[in-house]
Amino acid sequence: MKRISILGSTGSIGTQTLDIVTHHPDAFQVVGLAAGGNVELLAQQVAEFRPEIVAIRREEKLADLKVAVADLTDYQPQYAVGEGGVVEVARYGDAESVVTGIVGCAGLLPTMAAIAAGKDIALANKETLIAGAPVVLPLVEKMGVKLLPADSEHSAIFQCLQGVPEGGLRRIILTASGGAFRDLPVERLPFVTVQDALKHPNWAMGQKITIDSATLMNKGLEVIEAHYLFGLDYDHIDIVIHPQSIIHSLIEVQDTSVLAQLGWPDMRLPLLYALSWPERIYTDWEPLDLVKAGSLSFREPDHDKYPCMMLAYAAGRAGGAMPAVLNAANEQAVALFLQEKITFLDIPRLIEKTCDLYVGQNTASPDLETILAADQWARRTVLESSACVATRP
Amino acid sequence: MKRISILGSTGSIGTQTLDIVTHHPDAFQVVGLAAGGNVELLAQQVAEFRPEIVAIRREEKLADLKVAVADLTDYQPQYAVGEGGVVEVARYGDAESVVTGIVGCAGLLPTMAAIAAGKDIALANKETLIAGAPVVLPLVEKMGVKLLPADSEHSAIFQCLQGVPEGGLRRIILTASGGAFRDLPVERLPFVTVQDALKHPNWAMGQKITIDSATLMNKGLEVIEAHYLFGLDYDHIDIVIHPQSIIHSLIEVQDTSVLAQLGWPDMRLPLLYALSWPERIYTDWEPLDLVKAGSLSFREPDHDKYPCMMLAYAAGRAGGAMPAVLNAANEQAVALFLQEKITFLDIPRLIEKTCDLYVGQNTASPDLETILAADQWARRTVLESSACVATRP
Repeated sequence: MKRISILGSTGSIGTQTLDIVTHHPDAFQVVGLAAGGNVELLAQQVAEFRPEIVAIRREEKLADLKVAVADLTDYQPQYAVGEGGVVEVARYGDAESVVTGIVGCAGLLPTMAAIAAGKDIALANKETLIAGAPVVLPLVEKMGVKLLPADSEHSAIFQCLQGVPEGGLRRIILTASGGAFRDLPVERLPFVTVQDALKHPNWAMGQKITIDSATLMNKGLEVIEAHYLFGLDYDHIDIVIHPQSIIHSLIEVQDTSVLAQLGWPDMRLPLLYALSWPERIYTDWEPLDLVKAGSLSFREPDHDKYPCMMLAYAAGRAGGAMPAVLNAANEQAVALFLQEKITFLDIPRLIEKTCDLYVGQNTASPDLETILAADQWARRTVLESSACVATRP
Repeated sequence: MKRISILGSTGSIGTQTLDIVTHHPDAFQVVGLAAGGNVELLAQQVAEFRPEIVAIRREEKLADLKVAVADLTDYQPQYAVGEGGVVEVARYGDAESVVTGIVGCAGLLPTMAAIAAGKDIALANKETLIAGAPVVLPLVEKMGVKLLPADSEHSAIFQCLQGVPEGGLRRIILTASGGAFRDLPVERLPFVTVQDALKHPNWAMGQKITIDSATLMNKGLEVIEAHYLFGLDYDHIDIVIHPQSIIHSLIEVQDTSVLAQLGWPDMRLPLLYALSWPERIYTDWEPLDLVKAGSLSFREPDHDKYPCMMLAYAAGRAGGAMPAVLNAANEQAVALFLQEKITFLDIPRLIEKTCDLYVGQNTASPDLETILAADQWARRTVLESSACVATRP
């Protein structure tokens, strides 16, 4: 029985984690839940999983939450509120694993609190490494905890690496679906709309990540995350377009053998493995059927079509707080695109400009304050610059 | 530095193993070599690798061998001859691993001698398990040695299994190229010639194994070998046709995750891993390029087209000496086909008849004598039956 806490329990990662717990009551027990402000769903979760502690970030919702769970006569949890409450859940009690499903830099502080409390992390918050690596990795090392990737690509690599001895890894090959525009000629990109970009061919995901798939920034960010998780330099982390999203990623080892992890697109599998590792827990999920999956194809990613990919490699190589700047600039640019304030091709333009402006300020080992300031600076810079870029033609 | 001996050093497995040793002189040292009667090549190998012991199975060739290596003034090996000489090499000295590249049941006794001497086996002789499992597996267990598969499919499974905990394996999926007739309509099979059957689309191999690819008996035999190597029942070992031979096989684990091993078709990789395990040794072999490999496709094997496949499953399920009967009957039938004495479709007919005749004699735990007798009986039975089957129409 593994005791777990979930940060962001009412989001996509949180609800899928709880679905796993529901189906494996002998394997997992929920110790703590933290959510933003979805009182109705959080109250249901509290009633079903009976955590010892529950935090709601929006303090004004606490009264509603207490009312919603008031009829549980035989049980009441401990309550916590605000950002501090989320941190409290993160480091609470004897939970062994903390699932970090909070989006954005808001996830960074509670994740660090969980690590500092000696808990393993089922890592679904990408800022933890992309922005936070310079401070998070030394803490992980110091505390001797495990960062267990809970997204499909890094989980695939992590799964393939299980039997590979120290030093055996030579290359990482991240697969990318190619997103909404993979079959669109590059000349058409200036004219695509928000609705076009939101049509992801394989995965049903949030708007932000769906746009990141269309720009391939999601894969660029994964390259940076893979660098920090698995310790390879950027020359040995490749991207290949694999439209079917059946092979979730691959590794090449020193003798040229290639190992891959495959499956239907389903976020629950990497989440389960991040929680069950090193064990493999039986599930009744539909097994992969290669014949039904059809042909698996591969092509080189087109650098002209996906400028964000190269921006991510450049930011990763620059290191320090540059990946944080890249990530924040991207978030702000995508938000502007979703509001139809900039065009699709303005996204890479704004990110590139912002990263260029940061070069002189970047340092090799920034502290947390510097990283968070860089994140805020990048967002402001994109907002200011966006006033100058051309709007939709 | 791992000390190895090679049985069948002048054959395909032997020469490829020595190619690996040549390129990794810091990793491997050759202790013993055993060959059949190819004096010229064996003498070259002795001169290059300077083993402590060398055996030649054909006793009358010993004098030639001694002459051929006489000019090595600073070194002379110990000599051994005949079947007994091969066994002597198998158990000689402090070799840690023995590569068993001898074809057929002739490989069984020396392999058992090596196991009894406490050596790990790089397993390239399939009869060791297909015929010998009832006596070999208890010996492996008793001696605590490792059977390390050196063929691409079982090596793929073994590589994928490295990080999987005990009990985590749920299904094995062996990939098959489909052989020479994979795109031929089943109605055409009665009319195919020996030359047609020898055109393997992906791998350059010996005649016997190329025919086995065309009938899919090679895959049926691999199913039986996988059963003995990895302990799954036959309902959990599947075959899928994968014409490109890039994915060498796959496993499904308890949580439905699928792991695969990929590479260009090259026998040296599984050989190297069988010798280097659990390490991964750097090679400069051409790395796999997924884009260059093109699309990877999969289809169900057609039972009407490949009756040998089902015969192998049935023999595997029957157990005892039945897999030995199946294997020997197949060898004899393929030999007759290569001599153009029977048609392509007579191969499964003769095997099925022979297996049917053996049912009453089969026992669950045959001893070595019974297994070898069953092998000989099956060959005679096929020869006798072949006089009765229709010849080429």
